[in-house]
Amino acid sequence: MATIRDIADRLGVSISTVSKGLNGGDDISEELRQRILDTAVEMNYTTKRMRKAGNRKLCIFVGYTEYKTLGSFGYDIILGFKQAASLNHWEVDVIPVSPEFQRQEKYDTYMLKQGYSGAFIICFALPDIWMKQFQTTRIPTVLFDNYISQNQSVSYVGADSFEGIDAVIEHLSSLGHTRIGFINGSLYSMITEQRLRAFNTSMISRQLPIDHNLIVNTSYTGESATEHVAPLLQSGATAIICGNDFIAYSVMSECQRLGYRVPEDVSIVGFDDLPDSVKTNPPLTTVRQERIDLGKCGFYALHCLLYHLSCSKVLLHPSLVVRGSTAQVRNNQNQ
Amino acid sequence: MATIRDIADRLGVSISTVSKGLNGGDDISEELRQRILDTAVEMNYTTKRMRKAGNRKLCIFVGYTEYKTLGSFGYDIILGFKQAASLNHWEVDVIPVSPEFQRQEKYDTYMLKQGYSGAFIICFALPDIWMKQFQTTRIPTVLFDNYISQNQSVSYVGADSFEGIDAVIEHLSSLGHTRIGFINGSLYSMITEQRLRAFNTSMISRQLPIDHNLIVNTSYTGESATEHVAPLLQSGATAIICGNDFIAYSVMSECQRLGYRVPEDVSIVGFDDLPDSVKTNPPLTTVRQERIDLGKCGFYALHCLLYHLSCSKVLLHPSLVVRGSTAQVRNNQNQ
Repeated sequence: MATIRDIADRLGVSISTVSKGLNGGDDISEELRQRILDTAVEMNYTTKRMRKAGNRKLCIFVGYTEYKTLGSFGYDIILGFKQAASLNHWEVDVIPVSPEFQRQEKYDTYMLKQGYSGAFIICFALPDIWMKQFQTTRIPTVLFDNYISQNQSVSYVGADSFEGIDAVIEHLSSLGHTRIGFINGSLYSMITEQRLRAFNTSMISRQLPIDHNLIVNTSYTGESATEHVAPLLQSGATAIICGNDFIAYSVMSECQRLGYRVPEDVSIVGFDDLPDSVKTNPPLTTVRQERIDLGKCGFYALHCLLYHLSCSKVLLHPSLVVRGSTAQVRNNQNQ
Repeated sequence: MATIRDIADRLGVSISTVSKGLNGGDDISEELRQRILDTAVEMNYTTKRMRKAGNRKLCIFVGYTEYKTLGSFGYDIILGFKQAASLNHWEVDVIPVSPEFQRQEKYDTYMLKQGYSGAFIICFALPDIWMKQFQTTRIPTVLFDNYISQNQSVSYVGADSFEGIDAVIEHLSSLGHTRIGFINGSLYSMITEQRLRAFNTSMISRQLPIDHNLIVNTSYTGESATEHVAPLLQSGATAIICGNDFIAYSVMSECQRLGYRVPEDVSIVGFDDLPDSVKTNPPLTTVRQERIDLGKCGFYALHCLLYHLSCSKVLLHPSLVVRGSTAQVRNNQNQ
């Protein structure tokens, strides 16, 4: 294990300079401080605080999702992680992370300075600065809904999109739908790409036609989803799969505003099964992700990494929850 | 929880008849016995033995793989499973399963009669009779290298084929190979299909040409791999990826018998990293699967299922181990 002296020798500086770099003393340059931290990370240096027996600190970094409200997506995932972590005697801090935060501090050096043994990363987008740093980190790191290939220190945890989307298309197909639209989420998300591949794979395997006019992207907040609804309906979509429940709520309202009945004229399916999905009119057919279980799995995967059992992917079974927003296709629409 | 009386009522027979069906009494017909067992499974009946506190029995069913020899593929997976199970106070029985065995006894009824709470299934082939039964079983079941979609009681554990094959093709491509052949394993294996998809995906993403003359199937024992070697070399393959190490051993010998030097004339890559792969001449470049970790993951996934946390897939990071059987492509071969 590297010592402060090893770092000093490597950089040709004094031990007290290294100590200042690691502990935040203020009479060294910002550039030298970063070089010291980078070298400490590279040499696998661990702080005294981390080495102390009984130091068992993990953190959850939260990107683009609501997590403070009961029943929100992030809230439940964090709850599940904390439940499993606490049974295994780990402390957990929750830290919201902005792009500015990531610009100011490297992932590895932040972890080193704060003395965290590992992290669970939820709802980061592909352009996030730290995403590139996860490719080479050696700190046990579990990403929710993001995948890094060929790094033994990083795992991906999520719901099995292929299974979820295939269950939706099987359901719609059994109701006679062939003109199936897809209002997918943000282009800057790994999950968006994955669900599009799942959609295409499932449509092809079920011999349903893929019409590129029926596939569009919007944001996961659902705000700008409404603009896509009229064009899809005019192109003959009899069913619309939505990238998540927020998109589905917007799409359902817009269909109804345009005078289309749900599900008689158009079937709508969401993804996630948020608490509000039973309250829409009609209640939403959607793919349920067990959010608390996803959080627990996040912890289990991190626990495995901490003990050098290196998961690449841990995916949960999603389940299709059929409610009132899907029905048999109308005969005159079934082309 | 269903009782013997519930089963008797459902079938319109006496309690003593049901008891004979469940406990193997010999004065009822084979057909009635099976109906009683099927009904017991359907009604989620558990035997007294299973309900008894402290009954913690799991089993490993072994299909087509060697598992009794130290260092063999099956041996290590079973060892890893047993290590993790024993830490969690589960007993484990290992049961080799022939097609005949599967014909004689249904999976669910066997599990019920023997009082196992869950099973780990290793090295079954797609045509195995029980594979169809796994689609609907409600018994916690983890499959090594086989995948069942949309059954919350079944998980798939294995190494990430996409990552492994992509690492191989990245390596060969960096050595200048473009004419890459693939001697894949048995057609009756899910993993064979998966690795073919991985091969095609990786070749396309790296803008390498896919030549269908360079892709063939053989058995995982490697016995009949030799016949494919000359045609591949004549078709201009400068590198051959093999479905597992056994195939690679055969391919390497055959290349040398035909007067091709490994790696100067042709590079060869295996999959698994069995102990013999350091002993070939030259030692084999191969994709390592951590077999003991795969077994441990098998247990963890089963443990999750037993506590109703339903994994679809748990994949481990494989790692490329570069040894002497791969080298820079010869210039005059690089077409």
